Amino acid sequence: MDSIGVAVIGGGMAGRAHAAAYRMASTVYGGDLPPIRLVAIADLDAELAADVARRYGYSRSESDWRTIAEAPDVDAVSVVVSNALHREIVEALLSAGKHVLCEKPLADTLENAQAMLAAANRSPHVAAVGFTFRRAPAIAAIAEYVAKGGIGRPFHASARYWCDYAVSSAAPMSWRFSGPIGSGALADLGSHLIDALEQALGDITAVRGAFCSTVITERRLPQGRVRGHEFAELSDKTARVENEDFAHFTALFGSQTSGVFSVSRVATGLPNTLAFEIFGEEGAVAFDFTRPGEFWITSSTPADPDARWQRVIVGPRHPYVDRGLPMDAAGVHYGQNDLFAWQARAFLEQISGRSTLPPVPDFRTGLHNMHVIDAIAHSAHRAGSEVSVVGI
Amino acid sequence: MDSIGVAVIGGGMAGRAHAAAYRMASTVYGGDLPPIRLVAIADLDAELAADVARRYGYSRSESDWRTIAEAPDVDAVSVVVSNALHREIVEALLSAGKHVLCEKPLADTLENAQAMLAAANRSPHVAAVGFTFRRAPAIAAIAEYVAKGGIGRPFHASARYWCDYAVSSAAPMSWRFSGPIGSGALADLGSHLIDALEQALGDITAVRGAFCSTVITERRLPQGRVRGHEFAELSDKTARVENEDFAHFTALFGSQTSGVFSVSRVATGLPNTLAFEIFGEEGAVAFDFTRPGEFWITSSTPADPDARWQRVIVGPRHPYVDRGLPMDAAGVHYGQNDLFAWQARAFLEQISGRSTLPPVPDFRTGLHNMHVIDAIAHSAHRAGSEVSVVGI
Amino acid sequence: MDSIGVAVIGGGMAGRAHAAAYRMASTVYGGDLPPIRLVAIADLDAELAADVARRYGYSRSESDWRTIAEAPDVDAVSVVVSNALHREIVEALLSAGKHVLCEKPLADTLENAQAMLAAANRSPHVAAVGFTFRRAPAIAAIAEYVAKGGIGRPFHASARYWCDYAVSSAAPMSWRFSGPIGSGALADLGSHLIDALEQALGDITAVRGAFCSTVITERRLPQGRVRGHEFAELSDKTARVENEDFAHFTALFGSQTSGVFSVSRVATGLPNTLAFEIFGEEGAVAFDFTRPGEFWITSSTPADPDARWQRVIVGPRHPYVDRGLPMDAAGVHYGQNDLFAWQARAFLEQISGRSTLPPVPDFRTGLHNMHVIDAIAHSAHRAGSEVSVVGI
Amino acid sequence: MDSIGVAVIGGGMAGRAHAAAYRMASTVYGGDLPPIRLVAIADLDAELAADVARRYGYSRSESDWRTIAEAPDVDAVSVVVSNALHREIVEALLSAGKHVLCEKPLADTLENAQAMLAAANRSPHVAAVGFTFRRAPAIAAIAEYVAKGGIGRPFHASARYWCDYAVSSAAPMSWRFSGPIGSGALADLGSHLIDALEQALGDITAVRGAFCSTVITERRLPQGRVRGHEFAELSDKTARVENEDFAHFTALFGSQTSGVFSVSRVATGLPNTLAFEIFGEEGAVAFDFTRPGEFWITSSTPADPDARWQRVIVGPRHPYVDRGLPMDAAGVHYGQNDLFAWQARAFLEQISGRSTLPPVPDFRTGLHNMHVIDAIAHSAHRAGSEVSVVGI
Repeated sequence: MDSIGVAVIGGGMAGRAHAAAYRMASTVYGGDLPPIRLVAIADLDAELAADVARRYGYSRSESDWRTIAEAPDVDAVSVVVSNALHREIVEALLSAGKHVLCEKPLADTLENAQAMLAAANRSPHVAAVGFTFRRAPAIAAIAEYVAKGGIGRPFHASARYWCDYAVSSAAPMSWRFSGPIGSGALADLGSHLIDALEQALGDITAVRGAFCSTVITERRLPQGRVRGHEFAELSDKTARVENEDFAHFTALFGSQTSGVFSVSRVATGLPNTLAFEIFGEEGAVAFDFTRPGEFWITSSTPADPDARWQRVIVGPRHPYVDRGLPMDAAGVHYGQNDLFAWQARAFLEQISGRSTLPPVPDFRTGLHNMHVIDAIAHSAHRAGSEVSVVGI
Repeated sequence: MDSIGVAVIGGGMAGRAHAAAYRMASTVYGGDLPPIRLVAIADLDAELAADVARRYGYSRSESDWRTIAEAPDVDAVSVVVSNALHREIVEALLSAGKHVLCEKPLADTLENAQAMLAAANRSPHVAAVGFTFRRAPAIAAIAEYVAKGGIGRPFHASARYWCDYAVSSAAPMSWRFSGPIGSGALADLGSHLIDALEQALGDITAVRGAFCSTVITERRLPQGRVRGHEFAELSDKTARVENEDFAHFTALFGSQTSGVFSVSRVATGLPNTLAFEIFGEEGAVAFDFTRPGEFWITSSTPADPDARWQRVIVGPRHPYVDRGLPMDAAGVHYGQNDLFAWQARAFLEQISGRSTLPPVPDFRTGLHNMHVIDAIAHSAHRAGSEVSVVGI
Repeated sequence: MDSIGVAVIGGGMAGRAHAAAYRMASTVYGGDLPPIRLVAIADLDAELAADVARRYGYSRSESDWRTIAEAPDVDAVSVVVSNALHREIVEALLSAGKHVLCEKPLADTLENAQAMLAAANRSPHVAAVGFTFRRAPAIAAIAEYVAKGGIGRPFHASARYWCDYAVSSAAPMSWRFSGPIGSGALADLGSHLIDALEQALGDITAVRGAFCSTVITERRLPQGRVRGHEFAELSDKTARVENEDFAHFTALFGSQTSGVFSVSRVATGLPNTLAFEIFGEEGAVAFDFTRPGEFWITSSTPADPDARWQRVIVGPRHPYVDRGLPMDAAGVHYGQNDLFAWQARAFLEQISGRSTLPPVPDFRTGLHNMHVIDAIAHSAHRAGSEVSVVGI
Repeated sequence: MDSIGVAVIGGGMAGRAHAAAYRMASTVYGGDLPPIRLVAIADLDAELAADVARRYGYSRSESDWRTIAEAPDVDAVSVVVSNALHREIVEALLSAGKHVLCEKPLADTLENAQAMLAAANRSPHVAAVGFTFRRAPAIAAIAEYVAKGGIGRPFHASARYWCDYAVSSAAPMSWRFSGPIGSGALADLGSHLIDALEQALGDITAVRGAFCSTVITERRLPQGRVRGHEFAELSDKTARVENEDFAHFTALFGSQTSGVFSVSRVATGLPNTLAFEIFGEEGAVAFDFTRPGEFWITSSTPADPDARWQRVIVGPRHPYVDRGLPMDAAGVHYGQNDLFAWQARAFLEQISGRSTLPPVPDFRTGLHNMHVIDAIAHSAHRAGSEVSVVGI
């Protein structure tokens, strides 16, 4: 492949993160990627698409995603639109011979996700789903530390992803608030949290004790289009919020390890907090994304008996940092947008047959993630009974 | 009552906390308590009993608790021995006309706890159970803040009590490791955590999703007597650990509010950490006992839109501090032992018909606490199904 | 000595801390102290004296300190009154054959402090000055850690004692606001901070760069007596604040190690914060009294190269904790009042010829502390020039 | 100007930050910049120059900076080389009609800095110096908050920039360790810290109490070229370290406000920590770059009297964030590299006559910064006496 032409469908906040990521992908790590051509941004909102294309240096913008599927100069496409549109777009892109990076969650329903996996299996192209948090250097470092035995046999975990974007009744109704239990905070935030914990502890095999709750049951419709979580002029009409504002559950990782999970979009005062602790026989680890530049480790048999938790400053010893940033020293910090750059780099490496970075997870992983959320929803419907996660 | 003669049964670490507390009780708050006579300390270990009596200024020591029940100069007794002995001792004390302050949990079994409640109901004397954490100024302040609407309608909570006293295989077998599921970390630590959260959110009505696990399944027997959590010379004999090293569950506070709980005695690196966060429609609160001199509040409608979590320094504005310490200014700090002093003061006030402080909870509360733990154990046995907490 | 009769002159907040401390002194550590008799509390405010005596179990109260000096049943006396009264009272007590524990700073002026040292040198009795922070377990543990080479050769330190009791213009005029530069925040707070850092780094030999500032230059007089830092009804009359609200300086510990110091009574938002960091060739340490139950250490050659700062939880491995509290496990916490108990114990041990604990510092140390403050004041007067600390 | 051709002289870590920044500059904020042409990277190390050019998409690389000065397609140049080379290169660039962005400190000596200011004054082009920390959203937000009266009249500050890159004796000798007092930690780190504090408090007018110390007095020379702070194979030869490893001083901001400063490159355990607190009559602020996504504010008259320090999460309400990142929500985080992007954007705006962002400071500011450091060095030489900062 002489070069890779890329496009992004969806010009919202996450779409911009993908657009910027492709622009940065060739600046990080080694120099062996083929040239990346920034071809097109598509969005129903033509003005938005044009603005994003201009800002990030894409050659053109489109208001219909189908033009992307049909474009001969596009090889790889990020799909960053509302979940209910994933299947149609992804299937069309794969049929058209594109490599696809679909935002999480993989789809709006299990049926659609399964169909997408089938389509991916039929395609020779890369079909990947975006779980960016697994590329947070601190989370990746923790996963490595646990894998190499740093905490010994894992015992128990506590995990939470708390945001407050929905706590205000002034947050307008949007597609995020529609759909069955599981499509709310769990799909938006829980999907990330589940994937992050599975990096360290392996697959969740069952869940129990799920409790899902909608605490703001009606929201006013916006007068116009809403971009991302932004507030908008509200109309007088209201609509019912169908899915969960928060969810609690206990996850089982095999027969011995378990974790309590709390996922919320109504966690007042916390705009964006993914955090967890994992305890094991010989040590423990902890992370909080409000302070992404550090994580914590402890050992049950410290050389110094005084020593308790140790604050580790993220730096080039940890995954992704060395050559992953222009200045890549300890303590210079990274942000959530950098995670997208590293993900884009991994996706482009896969397309071009290289493998410096861990690959972007495939649709099987995306479907598994949805099965976990489905099990949570079922457990909630059954008053907390244990529900096994369906294998794939 | 011209004076109150007090005694403590049990000379271990918690027993010493009670012994010291009676000595301090008259130094805190107003001057209207009758004189407190420090009469006796009882422990099977006569040498220990004598040492504790001498240190805290008690007139005598005993090696048989029955002498306390029979002593005419003793009016009020703390029972601070292993849970399986609570019923026999407490019933004898109540029959002998003593006021009783029994350490948590109320008993080893529901049957014994129910019998103790019946005995208490037959007695005209104070029969109370010790939940000291509810007197932590920060926890009490949070309970007041929530009660007065500081966070609006409560949404969700996350709570944990993590200790590491059992993570080492060198911790010897003791009575703490025997008994059915529920008698391990849940009885020792969960009892406190449940009571603390109920201060702010009201009674737990049901639990679901419980997962209890014993991760160190055998322990070596000590060669001699073990005092508290101290290490001891180990013998070659081992015994099976029967009860849970950690427990996870989801608690329901009525129909809308729920919390995830994690309780562990194998949480490497954390000697003694009771912590929680509670989110509501108009604000949130947080506390971590590793930093008892502060708690955190936030509001969903701050005067300054920038303002997020606010760190509140505990001081005389908060419960128990003003005149509860010799120096009682903000930032001078208190410890867990002070909680026992305030509890002892409350108990003595109840005996003498005064009521400056919130009373020590009665056996009904102690039984309720055990019913919650029983529901957790049942939920764990039933693979996480929801189990209602039995009303009393 | 068959027993020790103790008295406290001064019934304010710090006086109460001394009164409570004598009551606790025999409950901590070993049992070899002679019996302690709680004899008398003296205060000009007779009502206050009576209340303190009653609360802490002292036999009588007095409104004239001279009755304490003359009392044959008093052997040891704490002097906890305004600094300008220290000399007269201490000299009289020593002449009367009492052991004396004088609150810091030793005196209001260097002349008076020198006279007090001369009086102490003439007396066979214990003459000690109270620097309680050196008994904070975390500070004492840090001093031991540095002394045993934990950080190698010390390089530089940063230290601050920040309070906010004077930031409000509603804080009434009192004796704390009168006197020359050095008698304000430096005498009240700086004295503690200097002593605490000297525990780890040895004596300050010179200071430079001092800057002292009075930022609230007038205060209203109270209508009545003011107790401690409490607010009071204000009259219409004002008086000029003479001494420093805050002070900055650079201290030299010998020729190679230096530290920056900031001392303030107008540090908005911080009721009581003594904190410092010390860096050396092979490690570093840090402490903040807002979180007294923890301190931090790091090593330049950690076993794990990732490991940076380690959070150490204070427990029985550290000074003062083991048997210094009823429950004395890691993470149970202590407060500032406990420091007074340990100081009282050390003082009583010295009187009775025992030496379990580090002794209470003598008047020479108290005078040295004042010489450091005097050097700071001189440096401030000379636009920051270096001023050597006068040797004793 | 139809387009702007940019080049970077210096391919080290900071040079790469500039190279990446120009690439990002057109992606942030509005769309009104002329097209940016990424023309050339120059470095003596031709291989390094080529690698940087390739990674960041620059058209060519050079091993001699003079080719940049002579290149007709280059309009704007970043100078990111050792300080002693700044003058010659900058003068040549200005003479050649280039716009110049010179890294801090402006020069190695005051004489050279003055000459550079004179050259800038003779040139119609933009001559700017890079102080990136002033563009940290948290620092800029604090400056705005103080400027609008958020803390009332400023009282006192405490500031530190602590790194540990020089604490290991294995760090090889380099140009950073040569030169007079002031050219060590002060030039490298203190320059940033001074500029950051001046954003909030205005210009430093005098310093006193300076203490500068070299604690590792000899270092081994590397066998080859050293890039940045990286370790290298050491030779057997050693050279003397001439400049300061750490420095302490008291800074005066006008007649009433002062701050203590600590600057160190031997602060074990802290790779990169710029932090400060500022207290005033009506509030206070605090920041620590180890946690760049948050800052802290407090008020002396809070709406809730309990409320003490408030943790503010950086987000689009604060400077630079809104449209300064692809995802620009609260809590998504930024890193030190983003500060360079925003600086590059400001520089390019100035060149093209726009002014969305605060301009990059001019050489006058760069010279002032050096005068402050010069005053510190003089104060250290004069045993801490006060030295006024020379006006420009």
